Amino acid sequence: MNIDEFVKERSPERDEISLYSLAFDQLSSKLREEISKNDIDAEPVLVGSVAKGTNLKGSDLDIFIAFSRKYSEKEIEKTGLLLARKAVPSGKARYAEHPYITGNYLGIKTDIVPCYMIKPGEIKVSSVDRTLLHTKYVNENLSDTEKNEVRKLKLFMKAAGIYGADVMTSGFSGYICELLIINKKSFDSVIKDLSNLKGRLRIPEHADLAEFGNSTAIVIDPTDPKRNAAAAVSLESLSKFKIASKLYLNNGFNAVFNRKGRSPELNKRGTVFRLISIRRPDRTEDVLYPQAARVLKKIEKTSFETGFRTIGSLVQLTEKEIRILIEFNREVIPSVIIHEGPPVDNGKSLEFLEKWDSRPILRGPYVMGDRLYVEIESDVINLDRFLISVMEGFSLGGTLESERQSLKIINPTGLGEYKKMMKEYLSKGLFN
Amino acid sequence: MNIDEFVKERSPERDEISLYSLAFDQLSSKLREEISKNDIDAEPVLVGSVAKGTNLKGSDLDIFIAFSRKYSEKEIEKTGLLLARKAVPSGKARYAEHPYITGNYLGIKTDIVPCYMIKPGEIKVSSVDRTLLHTKYVNENLSDTEKNEVRKLKLFMKAAGIYGADVMTSGFSGYICELLIINKKSFDSVIKDLSNLKGRLRIPEHADLAEFGNSTAIVIDPTDPKRNAAAAVSLESLSKFKIASKLYLNNGFNAVFNRKGRSPELNKRGTVFRLISIRRPDRTEDVLYPQAARVLKKIEKTSFETGFRTIGSLVQLTEKEIRILIEFNREVIPSVIIHEGPPVDNGKSLEFLEKWDSRPILRGPYVMGDRLYVEIESDVINLDRFLISVMEGFSLGGTLESERQSLKIINPTGLGEYKKMMKEYLSKGLFN
Repeated sequence: MNIDEFVKERSPERDEISLYSLAFDQLSSKLREEISKNDIDAEPVLVGSVAKGTNLKGSDLDIFIAFSRKYSEKEIEKTGLLLARKAVPSGKARYAEHPYITGNYLGIKTDIVPCYMIKPGEIKVSSVDRTLLHTKYVNENLSDTEKNEVRKLKLFMKAAGIYGADVMTSGFSGYICELLIINKKSFDSVIKDLSNLKGRLRIPEHADLAEFGNSTAIVIDPTDPKRNAAAAVSLESLSKFKIASKLYLNNGFNAVFNRKGRSPELNKRGTVFRLISIRRPDRTEDVLYPQAARVLKKIEKTSFETGFRTIGSLVQLTEKEIRILIEFNREVIPSVIIHEGPPVDNGKSLEFLEKWDSRPILRGPYVMGDRLYVEIESDVINLDRFLISVMEGFSLGGTLESERQSLKIINPTGLGEYKKMMKEYLSKGLFN
Repeated sequence: MNIDEFVKERSPERDEISLYSLAFDQLSSKLREEISKNDIDAEPVLVGSVAKGTNLKGSDLDIFIAFSRKYSEKEIEKTGLLLARKAVPSGKARYAEHPYITGNYLGIKTDIVPCYMIKPGEIKVSSVDRTLLHTKYVNENLSDTEKNEVRKLKLFMKAAGIYGADVMTSGFSGYICELLIINKKSFDSVIKDLSNLKGRLRIPEHADLAEFGNSTAIVIDPTDPKRNAAAAVSLESLSKFKIASKLYLNNGFNAVFNRKGRSPELNKRGTVFRLISIRRPDRTEDVLYPQAARVLKKIEKTSFETGFRTIGSLVQLTEKEIRILIEFNREVIPSVIIHEGPPVDNGKSLEFLEKWDSRPILRGPYVMGDRLYVEIESDVINLDRFLISVMEGFSLGGTLESERQSLKIINPTGLGEYKKMMKEYLSKGLFN
């Protein structure tokens, strides 16, 4: 297979395009009807990849209800949800930066999102407001051929595991794909440039680095030149983009799109795994993932200080559970801790001796170099006791703290429930 | 008990003094007889603590045969040994910087050492030559009362585990004790000064630091002002001297002279021990100890790089064996090694992928930050395999390499043979 065949396979066919068109017509009619019935100053707008004609097969349908700026944020949130529920009665409310309705319409996953009408240069209120401007800009600057190039690039990003601006992926949004094609004209030239790129990505190439701190990727948003559309791109995602581009150019389509996954054996690693499980609060991934990442970081830091070394980790959010999988170098650390006392020159050196001469010790006190030392027994001997004490020692933060009573520390090895996650961890490859 | 009672107990009584006197008279007569019989230009001289009257009970008898400088080094070595053997026929040759004879005479351990006659300011040939000058200087500068103060100080140093300039102790020689008393007049003032001393020791106090690099202790040799008599003193020994002085001043005689040893339990440490045993070549401790220390250092360094951490160590020389005892944090390290590849920007990144895509791995290759990584299986999994490979990987150096075939790696825990050494390790205290 080559990239053109693959894009064709993944692009919506005529039937799907008609169905999306129908769905938007019906939903916008319903919304307009409700809007006029209630005398509201608002308008349904098709946004996202469908509106821009850069969508892949089976994409979401994104409809914004753009309200006049005369309404308060609270008003548009409340009215917006009411209107959206009329259009998609089976929809459910979700809470990101603002609430919205997500549901199924004619078999299409549909999001209906309230926002403000906004014109270029106007002060933005919420990040969703900007979507209207993005839709307009892309439609004015992309030819039909180029829209197909965007789809190629999106599929390439997906294959490289870097498609999506969500916190877990920290990759490239659809809008960045569009801006890359607008800037470089074709998929091939994007790939060629990325395969040769050293250091940061800069679009346009003369973009002022100073203004965007130490962002890994700088893609200036043409609808708001002070904004870096690629601020969320991680160093890892950019690195994957580069190595994927090199592989594609040198080794062809399959090297990226059909890269063989490997599942090496667990029992050769000589390590131990623990899984922290916390019940999932009713929040989106973009809220929960950074909280889980902070908990992980805290565990890693304390482990290092105590003598456990973490080898790798994986955070997953299931519908009901936050899972933090951590691989440790060992299950038990020596109980002996070498406790550093004052230098002998120090006024407190005799005090130190007095203190430890009357306490239980494992060795010492003794002199090493110009200091006193004593070896004492560590409180923390095994990994489970250690993790329990770590987890008790700090706030889980945000919404996780409220779920503390659900916290479990599990040895996932051999448990069917966590088999898939373990496999995902072990088969970590270039693009997954 | 107080220090004065203790010194009295440990000082030679009249009978012992007479016996030493008799022994020297007889030995020097024999030597003189042989010297004149063979028409040699040489003279037996009593040196060391007996000659200076600063000896403790049961000390060695040190007799030098001082040769005219007209003889070559080889000549005095050869002739010196022949003469000494006539005086103490049961004596054995020992090889330090130069060979000498050590044996038993009238129940006294006696060393007979050939050297050159040397006068102050003359270029020294061997470090033993200087001993003549030291003996003369001390006798001219110490009163009888002060000689007793030297004995106090020597006993104090012994109690603090820092008496001796040998490599294992790296402490204070008898000559330094004498110089300290000459400089500070009394034991009490030495202890008072040391308990307040911060940083390096300097005798005399105006001694030029620059001339002696970063020596921990600088005690200028009055018979050779360019020489630091305390060059061999380690930071640890000086630190022990300081803390012992503080303890003596604050807590009295028993705090230093009868400091309680503690023998904590082994099984609470959660660690593992290994003992490297090598047959002892026929060399003095001062030659073998640094060689064993180098082997230990090499093992410690490689352990750290591989993931084993060393907690402590102890080197002992028995009559037949060199023993290097090492405590490790664990017996097994994870077999997984995180192997760092090139940055993705690097021209070799695809090469790295190609290489590892076709080799056995434990995980990866994957991207982290701006680099490629792969997790591979370590060759070294358990401590014994690790130690075998380390010991095979470098030369033991010096005379030890010739004994390589005798090298054994032993787990000493529970072995009666090493019980005493283990106990010594575990009961490491302030002054032992």
